[in-house]
Amino acid sequence: MLDKSYLPPAEARSLLLNALPALSVPAEECPIGEAYGRVLAEDILSPEDLPGFARSTVDGYAVNAADTFGARETAPAYLTVKSEVLMGAAADVPVGRAEAARIPTGGMLPPGTDAVVMLEHVQAVSADMIEVMKSVAPKENVIERDEDVASGETVLQRGHRLRPQDVAALAGLGIMRVAVSRRPVVAVVSTGDEILPPDRPLKPGQVRDINSYTLWGLIAASGGLPLRKGIFEDDYEVIRRAVEASLQEAQMVLITGGTSAGTKDMTLQIINDLGDPGVLFHGVALKPGKPMIGGIVSGTPVLGLPGHPAAVAVCFDLFIRPLIRRLSGQSAGRDFDKTVTARMAKSVASAAGREDHIRVSLDERDGALQAVPVLGKSGLITTLVRADGVVVIPPARLGLDAGEEVVVRLF
Amino acid sequence: MLDKSYLPPAEARSLLLNALPALSVPAEECPIGEAYGRVLAEDILSPEDLPGFARSTVDGYAVNAADTFGARETAPAYLTVKSEVLMGAAADVPVGRAEAARIPTGGMLPPGTDAVVMLEHVQAVSADMIEVMKSVAPKENVIERDEDVASGETVLQRGHRLRPQDVAALAGLGIMRVAVSRRPVVAVVSTGDEILPPDRPLKPGQVRDINSYTLWGLIAASGGLPLRKGIFEDDYEVIRRAVEASLQEAQMVLITGGTSAGTKDMTLQIINDLGDPGVLFHGVALKPGKPMIGGIVSGTPVLGLPGHPAAVAVCFDLFIRPLIRRLSGQSAGRDFDKTVTARMAKSVASAAGREDHIRVSLDERDGALQAVPVLGKSGLITTLVRADGVVVIPPARLGLDAGEEVVVRLF
Repeated sequence: MLDKSYLPPAEARSLLLNALPALSVPAEECPIGEAYGRVLAEDILSPEDLPGFARSTVDGYAVNAADTFGARETAPAYLTVKSEVLMGAAADVPVGRAEAARIPTGGMLPPGTDAVVMLEHVQAVSADMIEVMKSVAPKENVIERDEDVASGETVLQRGHRLRPQDVAALAGLGIMRVAVSRRPVVAVVSTGDEILPPDRPLKPGQVRDINSYTLWGLIAASGGLPLRKGIFEDDYEVIRRAVEASLQEAQMVLITGGTSAGTKDMTLQIINDLGDPGVLFHGVALKPGKPMIGGIVSGTPVLGLPGHPAAVAVCFDLFIRPLIRRLSGQSAGRDFDKTVTARMAKSVASAAGREDHIRVSLDERDGALQAVPVLGKSGLITTLVRADGVVVIPPARLGLDAGEEVVVRLF
Repeated sequence: MLDKSYLPPAEARSLLLNALPALSVPAEECPIGEAYGRVLAEDILSPEDLPGFARSTVDGYAVNAADTFGARETAPAYLTVKSEVLMGAAADVPVGRAEAARIPTGGMLPPGTDAVVMLEHVQAVSADMIEVMKSVAPKENVIERDEDVASGETVLQRGHRLRPQDVAALAGLGIMRVAVSRRPVVAVVSTGDEILPPDRPLKPGQVRDINSYTLWGLIAASGGLPLRKGIFEDDYEVIRRAVEASLQEAQMVLITGGTSAGTKDMTLQIINDLGDPGVLFHGVALKPGKPMIGGIVSGTPVLGLPGHPAAVAVCFDLFIRPLIRRLSGQSAGRDFDKTVTARMAKSVASAAGREDHIRVSLDERDGALQAVPVLGKSGLITTLVRADGVVVIPPARLGLDAGEEVVVRLF
């Protein structure tokens, strides 16, 4: 069949995402120490001003800035040292005009002060008198009360996946528990009469299950909960029952294997028989990954993945990760593909009308990164092991030239 | 102090890495299902040929290629269908000259065959006779025995961090357990009289601990085991005891806080007093992160981190992550920074002689990514929350121009 009769990958993905019902992702509460990588199910509004008081950003003297105006080395301002601010203590002794208080970095500005003179710009004249050699403007060397966040301000939005610094911000606001989206369960149904679990001895004609191991790691890293359902023989009733059981406990079902014509038809039939709308597309203008099947069964995505290891990895990036993000309640657009820029080490040809995902390994040569195409059929396991990422050749291009700058999406 | 008296970050990092003893990282065994993200402590040699037999890559007929030479639509080759290969079964019926066996994708080639004719190029003449319309070359549409990996070949090298496809390759070879490096324990000692655990009520002058939450997530994501030791008052004996206790159980110790002059001197003193070589550098030509202290105490890295949240994140990327990789036995160079390319939305100035790490948020405008500098002092928590990553201005540059293409290292 010609590739041009197939959908471009981006269109196929949109079909799937648009057919997903506008679901409200179920939420659960968790302590912030367990919230790394989770998706917020609520907007976080600051319960207070942060900081709760004006703080010094340097070691020095808290002053009324006006008392330093015009001060310079040849004409310093003389101030009486009234008190010393201690770290972590309330600074409640007021400082009057022509007075100053010694203050450490992070210390609280005492009443009557609005700026801090750095230690380097001060000379002690006596035990309680200093010369200020440089003027400061009001608010200089100060973090104002609520400069970080004001009470009631939105700090983090629903749909944001929490990074370490986001969890730290929650801690900074005294928020110890947050509502996060429940992780979507993604079931993996492996098919193929030749496939055996990897701990069993092989007979001639048999091979070990590898795709469910790739998927397990990719699903977990994308925020899903992988559920390995097992390996099922190529029989309509057997696979249908496995998919039905998966639909009871999972928010997405992946059927792997079935590259041969008979099994592919069986997968199509099962997705269509189990619920509406059924199969949305069958075949994508993509290499590897052409035989990919996309469907929705009563609101749950059910995908038929080609059996080739390289196709599984490419289809994960293009279809499965975006679906997991959506099912996790994650907002679109704030999660960028991890990429590096490199130059092609050699030319690669591609057929027109098809999006080619070329596996490449990265080599550093003269301080610059080179993308070296990894040779080998997409049915091989080790091409993925030798690859650091993929380079995409868009459908309109007939290949990439040696030396051409490319963006490598890292595995 | 002038920045030029400080070390460039790359030199400071080399000082630390070169002073680390050539340690043998302790290993432990783990089942492959738990090995995602772990670092191999052994080379993996294939125990067998993969695949263990020649396989078809298409649905079709296994043939002796020589029988099809010259075949074309106007002059097809006639072959007798001798048998059918079943998925997962041994193909042990020999196929003779002018004979063929029906075979599915992934099926085992029977003895006497060396290529497969695709179904599309064949027409059935009778129940056991086919016309082949197109010749095939020997090995065409076949994955040969050991084409993926040959027995004894190195599949994965010691020091490699296992990705999902690497774990899958282990499964494919029937390897169910591997030796991996033990995760290095990284202790976090928080200091500061003003710092309180985030679940306690604040009094004026106090702030909540946030840096240990940032570090916890970053350490875990980099393959380390974070150990939060607690918050300690700014007292030589107290902090020294906390660091000594940490050295008993951790492979790296991070002391956070201490931006004020007194505490910084205390941290320097403690690192020097606890063991040789002690402090290696103090101060880096870096913003944020200038007051960073790097030391080694009897083979264990002990770092003093500036208290500003943005400095913690930058110092983690530049110093802590490379050290964790080394302490995990990870090989250099195969782990690339996650970056995207964008254009600066506005100009940013920088001082000469200093490496500036500018926090930016990413915006998509007309299909292209724009890096928008996040304004705010590095002492603020929320600048990191609003940022998607950082752009580095090298020491020789005085800034970045609006519209300039930059590489954004993603958080």
